[in-house]
Amino acid sequence: MSELFPSIPKIKFEGPKSDSPLAFKYYEPAKDKDSLRFAMAFWHSMCAGGRDPFGDPTAERPWNSVADPMEAAKMRMHGVFELTEKLSMPYFCFHDRDIAPEGASLRETNKNLDVIVALAKDLMKGSPTKLLWGTANCFGNPRYMHGAATSPEPKVFAYAAAQVKKALEVTKELGGQNYVFWGGREGYETLLNTDMKMEQENMAKFLHLAVDYAKEIGFTGQFLIEPKPKEPTKHQYDFDAATCYGFLKEYDLLPYFKLNLETNHATLAQHTMQHDMRFARDHGILGSVDANQGDEMLGWDTDQFPTNLYVTTLIMYEVQKNGGLHSGGLNFDAKVRRGSYKVEDLAIAHIVGMDSFARGAQAASRMIADKALDKLLDERYAGWKSGVGASIRAGKESFKSLEAAMLDAKTANPSDFGLGSGKQEYLESIVNRYL
Amino acid sequence: MSELFPSIPKIKFEGPKSDSPLAFKYYEPAKDKDSLRFAMAFWHSMCAGGRDPFGDPTAERPWNSVADPMEAAKMRMHGVFELTEKLSMPYFCFHDRDIAPEGASLRETNKNLDVIVALAKDLMKGSPTKLLWGTANCFGNPRYMHGAATSPEPKVFAYAAAQVKKALEVTKELGGQNYVFWGGREGYETLLNTDMKMEQENMAKFLHLAVDYAKEIGFTGQFLIEPKPKEPTKHQYDFDAATCYGFLKEYDLLPYFKLNLETNHATLAQHTMQHDMRFARDHGILGSVDANQGDEMLGWDTDQFPTNLYVTTLIMYEVQKNGGLHSGGLNFDAKVRRGSYKVEDLAIAHIVGMDSFARGAQAASRMIADKALDKLLDERYAGWKSGVGASIRAGKESFKSLEAAMLDAKTANPSDFGLGSGKQEYLESIVNRYL
Amino acid sequence: MSELFPSIPKIKFEGPKSDSPLAFKYYEPAKDKDSLRFAMAFWHSMCAGGRDPFGDPTAERPWNSVADPMEAAKMRMHGVFELTEKLSMPYFCFHDRDIAPEGASLRETNKNLDVIVALAKDLMKGSPTKLLWGTANCFGNPRYMHGAATSPEPKVFAYAAAQVKKALEVTKELGGQNYVFWGGREGYETLLNTDMKMEQENMAKFLHLAVDYAKEIGFTGQFLIEPKPKEPTKHQYDFDAATCYGFLKEYDLLPYFKLNLETNHATLAQHTMQHDMRFARDHGILGSVDANQGDEMLGWDTDQFPTNLYVTTLIMYEVQKNGGLHSGGLNFDAKVRRGSYKVEDLAIAHIVGMDSFARGAQAASRMIADKALDKLLDERYAGWKSGVGASIRAGKESFKSLEAAMLDAKTANPSDFGLGSGKQEYLESIVNRYL
Amino acid sequence: MSELFPSIPKIKFEGPKSDSPLAFKYYEPAKDKDSLRFAMAFWHSMCAGGRDPFGDPTAERPWNSVADPMEAAKMRMHGVFELTEKLSMPYFCFHDRDIAPEGASLRETNKNLDVIVALAKDLMKGSPTKLLWGTANCFGNPRYMHGAATSPEPKVFAYAAAQVKKALEVTKELGGQNYVFWGGREGYETLLNTDMKMEQENMAKFLHLAVDYAKEIGFTGQFLIEPKPKEPTKHQYDFDAATCYGFLKEYDLLPYFKLNLETNHATLAQHTMQHDMRFARDHGILGSVDANQGDEMLGWDTDQFPTNLYVTTLIMYEVQKNGGLHSGGLNFDAKVRRGSYKVEDLAIAHIVGMDSFARGAQAASRMIADKALDKLLDERYAGWKSGVGASIRAGKESFKSLEAAMLDAKTANPSDFGLGSGKQEYLESIVNRYL
Repeated sequence: MSELFPSIPKIKFEGPKSDSPLAFKYYEPAKDKDSLRFAMAFWHSMCAGGRDPFGDPTAERPWNSVADPMEAAKMRMHGVFELTEKLSMPYFCFHDRDIAPEGASLRETNKNLDVIVALAKDLMKGSPTKLLWGTANCFGNPRYMHGAATSPEPKVFAYAAAQVKKALEVTKELGGQNYVFWGGREGYETLLNTDMKMEQENMAKFLHLAVDYAKEIGFTGQFLIEPKPKEPTKHQYDFDAATCYGFLKEYDLLPYFKLNLETNHATLAQHTMQHDMRFARDHGILGSVDANQGDEMLGWDTDQFPTNLYVTTLIMYEVQKNGGLHSGGLNFDAKVRRGSYKVEDLAIAHIVGMDSFARGAQAASRMIADKALDKLLDERYAGWKSGVGASIRAGKESFKSLEAAMLDAKTANPSDFGLGSGKQEYLESIVNRYL
Repeated sequence: MSELFPSIPKIKFEGPKSDSPLAFKYYEPAKDKDSLRFAMAFWHSMCAGGRDPFGDPTAERPWNSVADPMEAAKMRMHGVFELTEKLSMPYFCFHDRDIAPEGASLRETNKNLDVIVALAKDLMKGSPTKLLWGTANCFGNPRYMHGAATSPEPKVFAYAAAQVKKALEVTKELGGQNYVFWGGREGYETLLNTDMKMEQENMAKFLHLAVDYAKEIGFTGQFLIEPKPKEPTKHQYDFDAATCYGFLKEYDLLPYFKLNLETNHATLAQHTMQHDMRFARDHGILGSVDANQGDEMLGWDTDQFPTNLYVTTLIMYEVQKNGGLHSGGLNFDAKVRRGSYKVEDLAIAHIVGMDSFARGAQAASRMIADKALDKLLDERYAGWKSGVGASIRAGKESFKSLEAAMLDAKTANPSDFGLGSGKQEYLESIVNRYL
Repeated sequence: MSELFPSIPKIKFEGPKSDSPLAFKYYEPAKDKDSLRFAMAFWHSMCAGGRDPFGDPTAERPWNSVADPMEAAKMRMHGVFELTEKLSMPYFCFHDRDIAPEGASLRETNKNLDVIVALAKDLMKGSPTKLLWGTANCFGNPRYMHGAATSPEPKVFAYAAAQVKKALEVTKELGGQNYVFWGGREGYETLLNTDMKMEQENMAKFLHLAVDYAKEIGFTGQFLIEPKPKEPTKHQYDFDAATCYGFLKEYDLLPYFKLNLETNHATLAQHTMQHDMRFARDHGILGSVDANQGDEMLGWDTDQFPTNLYVTTLIMYEVQKNGGLHSGGLNFDAKVRRGSYKVEDLAIAHIVGMDSFARGAQAASRMIADKALDKLLDERYAGWKSGVGASIRAGKESFKSLEAAMLDAKTANPSDFGLGSGKQEYLESIVNRYL
Repeated sequence: MSELFPSIPKIKFEGPKSDSPLAFKYYEPAKDKDSLRFAMAFWHSMCAGGRDPFGDPTAERPWNSVADPMEAAKMRMHGVFELTEKLSMPYFCFHDRDIAPEGASLRETNKNLDVIVALAKDLMKGSPTKLLWGTANCFGNPRYMHGAATSPEPKVFAYAAAQVKKALEVTKELGGQNYVFWGGREGYETLLNTDMKMEQENMAKFLHLAVDYAKEIGFTGQFLIEPKPKEPTKHQYDFDAATCYGFLKEYDLLPYFKLNLETNHATLAQHTMQHDMRFARDHGILGSVDANQGDEMLGWDTDQFPTNLYVTTLIMYEVQKNGGLHSGGLNFDAKVRRGSYKVEDLAIAHIVGMDSFARGAQAASRMIADKALDKLLDERYAGWKSGVGASIRAGKESFKSLEAAMLDAKTANPSDFGLGSGKQEYLESIVNRYL
């Protein structure tokens, strides 16, 4: 197939002083590829056209005029390889229905999928681009209007099971390093019509069946759950990192699952992304990152390309403190703005996102190397390493022993306890220093 | 002590047609006392004066002119008995520092507390008013600025331990049926200075010490944790019901704790109160309710008296479906508006709240008796009781067996799956019918 | 054309005790038609299919299988008359592009429109259904991606002008009583690329051209602007009622425009709907109402059918205090939930909305007749009717004269000023009494 | 009086490589003093102690142990001069009640004020520190619980008038360059008890009386109104910049008033600060800036010291495009976090804020000098400078003439209109480049 994006050249590193929109200023592919495991989101970059609830698609794309869905699907698959290669982006991610159209029956749909998967496998042979993760779209089709694994109708559960089965096979076939579940319809619109307990039990059952089947076919990639509090449903069961943790623990799924965290989902749940990453890191379930950003003034999922350096720096800080993302990566689950409708915008948006993360990664590395935050943290919690602090943590104290120590102690002022300042303003200036 | 609120008479039930502000229209004490286990919040009703971040206290209260803190404390304790009796309110709740002032040392503080507790015990003898729960205020004093159980400074942990020890003793002494933890400072202002993992471990340790001590002294009341997402700290560890559940499970605290849920805290976490109640009910941890309401247009904890009949009806629906609150109750953790500064407002606000709950309870009872929602729910989930639904739930299906059933099935339209309508609009009209 | 919705009968008033989903419990058409000027929104009820940002349309509609756009358009026009008549709904509202498809040029598009308008006119002859208002969809087509009247490209302004010209003609032709502007794309995505001042000047210019053209063709309906703070754009210029007022005043448009207020738009701007209605009423610009409701826990425009009786009661309170809506009405700018995908849901949702408003109107009438709020209001502001209050309002006082009166006055306590309680809790119980 | 903050030295500029917390890295006093008209907020820096709705004050301050209010007031006045001088901060701002305590009558209160004002005047003689603006606290005292100028009780209006009269005199006496109105209680808690129209008329009347009195005494400083949407009241009449504009225009106050915009108030109204500044700039009412920042995840006014470089850069961009702030300045209406309770934190927080603004100012200057955004803006709106665009703006076109041009034009695609990309991602990367 001939070049699909001729206006986009191979993007080169030109350094921070470059003012070319089509050059990297911070991301050096040769050096950064392994630590910044970037991935392109097939759905946004190859499928989305800029539709919003009040307007039609705007994007100019080479397949817009192609009527046959399988031909368009092939073009898109060529497209993702062309664009990831030009951007030196090591991975891509997809939902089953992004890459191939649905047929009249599931059997026919699977055939469509097989054709495109074969093409992808073929293209991989001559390309450095690999598959970060696959997933199944169990939310777009009307059959999933009341949920997939949590549908009140068991046939829908069965259909979703069949769909995920195939998606697992396909992900394995393409060497996918992870498999993601995003339960966009696993939740409710109103509690008035919902048996939340049964629905959550069914969801857990579904995930166990997936684990069983992965074992059966020898898929060894990491399973990931992607939290989101709301949208498209009023309430999703995978609300945030902490909720997912509780659910996984409740249903004995913790050994098999980690989390795929997304910035804009964290903020919709009123957490900073750093919070959800920290929670996941603390609990050993930080799996992968959907690298986008939201608009804090808006109440829906805007999926913007990540440009805020505070966000990218603090994400990379948590990633590096985690020893990296292991099989996970930084997937640009981001769409160009509806007004950024030209093909060049697609390249520029990815470049901007990659540069923002590369710059954030550099800032984070220096902060960690300098122990810029760690020194203050060590001082702050020093009390817990000896004396009564160590004794409490060792389980040697009781309410009685602690009361005895405090009954007549001098405790009128914070300084009687040796409390230091929280130093928030100073700490924020330290982050600024490293930007 | 002479009558403190002479302008407030004994409140009588006069029925829905009464237009007296100082009469019950729905709450019939004799009939409803056991099912509507109302409690007065000592801190709001006896202590709060209407201060807000931009203004001084406004409330006219009989103790405003009393200089001696212990004298004022005694008046307040008389006040809570006088007012609960006049309102036929069966319970009250308090923090240690609400009822008695802090002294120069913890020993002296405890002495102050003992004096007031003795008074309370005495007053109880001649009164129907009982103690629903006690708790310790481990958030107001500057020593708790960085947390209590989660302070970076172990001495603060020790002090909080000593304080909770005494609060447990006092709660037991007064026959309290529950003991509550609200961790208003157990969280963080910025992650830049926070070791979240260590802090949460310390918090779990603290709760275990409380459980141990309760056993030691034979306190058999129910322990409760009260979730809140933010305020006063940027982020509190007990974010919402689901987060608390995960935490309790992680640290083996689930056998000892239930939740004390508050409407305004649920909505600040972007949940409906019904959601958090349902979650708690589904997980067997619905303990008690802080019965207030927030203002959905405002982003802070307004702690308003509950007047919204949708809120009270759906809370009582969940309570009744739970078989009641057992040792828990409906605590009016609500403050009169700053502009409602007269003594009469205090009575009226409680009357309005009690009537709103009584009316909600009647609506909920009728909805349950009529199976108004249950009939539709049974239909909706009928598929899971037989056939493939039952087989899935019994663990007899796999991805393979389910795929086999679906590969060639007719699945083009939702109706091919037998999907019904979600009927949200109709269900909302049913709730209206019962209001 | 044969009946399109055979499963929906003519809806009758059966009174509050009816439990038929397909009957009115509160709305009595014969009695209420003139005071409750209900309208059906063509776009939602005839066009929308339940698509959301993550899913395809679900709705079962008679025209789903009709391939020819003009044939489908005719069916929809028949549909709106059939359904409004069955519901005894006196009006409908439409955008130009709802009722007829776009052609290859504007000339062709206008021809399509003419065909359907002729059909509508014909159907009107045998029907009680009238047109409340028309409008032009200047937001859906990609050409409007950067705005219509506020596009950086004048050709888009010109195209929008031509489109609104035709929409005005058509609205006049069908006897429309108002003409609405909703500037969904008149705003910005980022200030970095926006000349806000020039864009607002152009918007004002556009509205003046509309006023000029209306005069030219003798269209005497009321012009209305519909505020909304955000969505689809990040920020819309018509943010809320107060912002629109300032804009209209700045550009001398106040004589020609009133506001079409929508509940869910008001709440997205963090106002209660009552607030925006009161503001509009106070400024003589309360024109019409888009009668829906949002979900306070969600940050986007959910356009739900209005079922909350507090909302409907307080809307009707403001409407009645305004002496009615005059040429305006109560337009159900509401869509059935995506899961309410059956044809019956469409009828039920309207019935529920109409009943909720009828019940709210009855409550409001009784509150007004009883002076339930007015009595307290009169007392509260009595001070402004005589003495220094009257003198201030008459312009007879100065800072000096007022200081003289206060320098040595007793002002230590609120009661020294004769301040009453704000009585919020009591007032909320009064609303409950009337529900 | 001896040095109050001995631990705080005179702060020197050491450049970006300095890692001393007590040095400027970007702000060079000698060079930047005139363009960065920084001011210290007396209330936060001298009065606030860290109280929040759930906790007592924490701050260690030299006057904590001083019992006599007038003595403490004198110390604070010394303190603001000492600290502004050490920080090379050219201005301070105050409310009347910040600097002197209330007495038993207004006459006595004014006497207290006179004493402190005389001290301030004296201190000014030997100091470079000047008064940016004064204001009256008409929100803290219980008498203002229902509003000041908008109180239902005229005596409260009169008292506020007398208070503002004195505050104007004092501001003039101290050479204040502006006078600010913040109407924290000018709004409502519930519309059920509010006559919004009368209250707004009274507020306008009040402002006119202030204008009259300023003329009378020859006060020539700029009047400023400070918008805020909510808190402490549910709804404030000065909701945001656009609302204030409409109000000022409605009541013929526009010639006398500009706006004092605050970052955290803008974001509480769901605007970016840049939006409200742009609005004010476009309308010639950009007066002054309260330089703080909020926490987008929290729903209340956190008044944090400004550290976010995006915020400071875009504020300074608008300031510089406005040709500076003229008589206005950058007032740090910011409070140290409750946990930053040491005296040093007070200095560090100001240093961090000043450096963040200095760095932002440098970035903005370079962006303007390079026409980094302007070039793209000029291209984007070029169509309005000639052809049909110019003709529309010149009032030479009508709906008819525009329709004639469009009826048969090629308009199928956005590119037919010559629409460019919105380039949001690229523009955001440009801002990053200048940080």
